[in-house]
Amino acid sequence: VANSCHFRFSHANAYDISELPLSERDLIERFAGFARSAGAGRRPRKLSPQIGSPQLVRGIGDDCAVLRSPGGDDLLVTTDFSLEGVHFRREWHPPESVGQRCLARGLSDIAAMGGKPVTAFLSLAVPPACSQFWVDRFMRGFLRLAGAFGVRLAGGDTAQSPAGVLADIIVLGSVPRGKAVLRSGAHPRDRIYVTGALGGSAAALQLLREARPKKLDPRKFPRHFFPEPRIGIGEFLRKEKLPSAMIDTSDGLSTDLSHICEQSSVGAKLWAERVPRARIPAPRKVVDLQLGLHGGEDYELLFTVPADLHVPRSIAGVPITCIGAITRNRKILLVNKNGSCETLKPAGWEHFRSNSDE
Amino acid sequence: VANSCHFRFSHANAYDISELPLSERDLIERFAGFARSAGAGRRPRKLSPQIGSPQLVRGIGDDCAVLRSPGGDDLLVTTDFSLEGVHFRREWHPPESVGQRCLARGLSDIAAMGGKPVTAFLSLAVPPACSQFWVDRFMRGFLRLAGAFGVRLAGGDTAQSPAGVLADIIVLGSVPRGKAVLRSGAHPRDRIYVTGALGGSAAALQLLREARPKKLDPRKFPRHFFPEPRIGIGEFLRKEKLPSAMIDTSDGLSTDLSHICEQSSVGAKLWAERVPRARIPAPRKVVDLQLGLHGGEDYELLFTVPADLHVPRSIAGVPITCIGAITRNRKILLVNKNGSCETLKPAGWEHFRSNSDE
Repeated sequence: VANSCHFRFSHANAYDISELPLSERDLIERFAGFARSAGAGRRPRKLSPQIGSPQLVRGIGDDCAVLRSPGGDDLLVTTDFSLEGVHFRREWHPPESVGQRCLARGLSDIAAMGGKPVTAFLSLAVPPACSQFWVDRFMRGFLRLAGAFGVRLAGGDTAQSPAGVLADIIVLGSVPRGKAVLRSGAHPRDRIYVTGALGGSAAALQLLREARPKKLDPRKFPRHFFPEPRIGIGEFLRKEKLPSAMIDTSDGLSTDLSHICEQSSVGAKLWAERVPRARIPAPRKVVDLQLGLHGGEDYELLFTVPADLHVPRSIAGVPITCIGAITRNRKILLVNKNGSCETLKPAGWEHFRSNSDE
Repeated sequence: VANSCHFRFSHANAYDISELPLSERDLIERFAGFARSAGAGRRPRKLSPQIGSPQLVRGIGDDCAVLRSPGGDDLLVTTDFSLEGVHFRREWHPPESVGQRCLARGLSDIAAMGGKPVTAFLSLAVPPACSQFWVDRFMRGFLRLAGAFGVRLAGGDTAQSPAGVLADIIVLGSVPRGKAVLRSGAHPRDRIYVTGALGGSAAALQLLREARPKKLDPRKFPRHFFPEPRIGIGEFLRKEKLPSAMIDTSDGLSTDLSHICEQSSVGAKLWAERVPRARIPAPRKVVDLQLGLHGGEDYELLFTVPADLHVPRSIAGVPITCIGAITRNRKILLVNKNGSCETLKPAGWEHFRSNSDE
């Protein structure tokens, strides 16, 4: 596998004369050096000699687009922006956290299809005021997560940003042909499950917004600062043929469940009591139900399973919780502790925000 | 081929409360509608049932990364930023032009590998002040070019931009296994060829910068406003096994030739007289040699061919010009009209800019 030393050179500075912290060429060299050391030791398998063209079997409408490699696995492709001021803030998030969060978003989409990530592409635009030290630490966070999942950084683009750090991540993954777990396969009476716990990431964001304490210790809020995508669990579930539909909880349970319901033309009933809520250390507590229902960026897996199939209570040490059931009636209902029902609107971040801003 | 109606929903507005011109969901719906109508009528070929995983055979270091589909074609992947204020300006470029330029950058990279584009992914962040009308016209330009080359819009991401329109384009393409034309194959005595004419796009940019006339008529400067990637020519050359190395002229002849030379460990000799310079209509003239040598964004193909092979004088109506030869000496020399030699530095945009700013 040849892997030489340049990103493609882009048109940075064509319309503006300020400079990157390093010259673009130096920046690219540095990325390539990082990528070489991170990707060492992988060898291609032997391949059989057939001709064909990748075909789109699933385009817009799921966590990933699926392209079929003739005679091979399906290829998964996902792309995710991480924009300063929208998805992170440099004053809140250490650069390693921004790098890891950026890649985790893409890897989590691959996990939600039951796939295995293969390569990542990073488009990164940096404003003149951003130090090379920041960029190096960003790359450290990015490549640490990539290394942990055997993902190669395979290319990208660099540019000077007119305002703020802008990253776009593309992840390519694979899944055995026709086996990608889509959002559209849920059926009435399927049970709804979620991995891990919810609301932890949004709780950290809430504390950051309220600036109490002034700075959060990232190690105490790993799900917010250093999310780990549920790749292994997604693959396990897919191999066991358990999920009828799956999505990752990036926008919040209420929003992500609404995607499954819409795409599957079904509704759902959630038991409020059963939604697993994250524990946070400072202030020491279990997060509010509202954060569990609507808080985003947990990158857990939300999936449905036919009622007659057995789902383990934990997979690879991560608890798996049954939180509801799919219904024929296309509403999403929340069943409270006392048995009363209310409609659960896909509020996600909007709801969380208007709550916290009141 | 199922193709449902959502991009993945991203975390727009998670950290900021201003709004997109349309709600993000509406924007996504609209994209998906566009993509459906643009991509109608394509059907997957029959595929043979084998198992494997895409392998990276060419990562960082060329116009595209190459992934091998086991038993099939190699997959090409490229990613390119188009950032407002860096790669375009809304006051200079009509939205259709921005959309077409955005996609053309990626398609041109595929052309430079001798490949065929298959699918595109668009990540688009729009500031609150940008109208939906602008976005619709952007998409029209984007999808018109996509349609012309049979490229499907297969997904992407949307977000609110904190400043300016931000687009990142990913194009996936294919090329018969092992046949991608790399930058690294040039040998001493190979002849250097270029398609079309150079400097036309940079000349338009220069006029825009100098604001004379106040507004350019985009139809008079098609190579700047509506570049068409040389896909057909790239494929023809690859099929004829002519190029030993190939790149597209996105950063300017001097810079792009330096990439071929670096990656091939060779030098080059260019005949100044032979560099085909673009004609522009207003002011009516042939562009200066400096623009021909250093101006970017022409998206022509620059390639090297062994001296004993015959190269047609035109392909599909586009002139092909021999402009120099590869040398063992690793410098790049410019041979002037009078026979004198000077070193040609990979100046690209920098040089052009400092010239025009003087």
